[in-house]
Amino acid sequence: MVQYSSGLLDASFAALSDVTRRGVLEQLGRANASITELAVKFCMTLTGMKKHVGVLEQAGLVTTEKVGRVRTCKLGPRRLEKEAAWIERHRQLWDSRFDELDKVVEEQERKEMVDGRRKKV
Amino acid sequence: MVQYSSGLLDASFAALSDVTRRGVLEQLGRANASITELAVKFCMTLTGMKKHVGVLEQAGLVTTEKVGRVRTCKLGPRRLEKEAAWIERHRQLWDSRFDELDKVVEEQERKEMVDGRRKKV
Repeated sequence: MVQYSSGLLDASFAALSDVTRRGVLEQLGRANASITELAVKFCMTLTGMKKHVGVLEQAGLVTTEKVGRVRTCKLGPRRLEKEAAWIERHRQLWDSRFDELDKVVEEQERKEMVDGRRKKV
Repeated sequence: MVQYSSGLLDASFAALSDVTRRGVLEQLGRANASITELAVKFCMTLTGMKKHVGVLEQAGLVTTEKVGRVRTCKLGPRRLEKEAAWIERHRQLWDSRFDELDKVVEEQERKEMVDGRRKKV
């Protein structure tokens, strides 16, 4: 499963594993913003925000452009398709595993019920 | 957006950011397995696999049970609902942002076409 893009998935899931970075993506989903604006919004130092934006940029989730002294951030080209597909496949596997377990439990309960009736007879 | 569960999302996205851990989840989606079986399958040391399983367990994606000397791993209670929901919301924001950009580009092209016609006249 998606071995060819494992590095890509590693990078994007790692980028998403921080509440500030997810917040930055949500913010850029509403409007582009400069590093300074993001740093103010998330009460961080410029250096700290630059690091977070760097992680998002490396994962292809954000692109930045420097015009004069201002570096503007916007959503990158990646639409998290592979990530969504991976999670969806996992949920399908999860469902089928727990359906199997449900069947085992139901079968067990059915047997116990039949055994109980036999003992009464 | 889902601030209340930010720690949970941090842990699960971090757990998913490694190709071996994703592979373990895929494997457990097919059948339960012992730590030893997983270590052999992924060509790792027992210690290395224990660490990976520990990360998955802390994120609620795997549960383990020790019977005798064997620790068996199976899929945990979490079905990645919040993770899927977060990614879906991000994709919707992404789509609406790029729809806006498309409109700006189309409007620009329309203006250029009109200006071009005026110059010819």
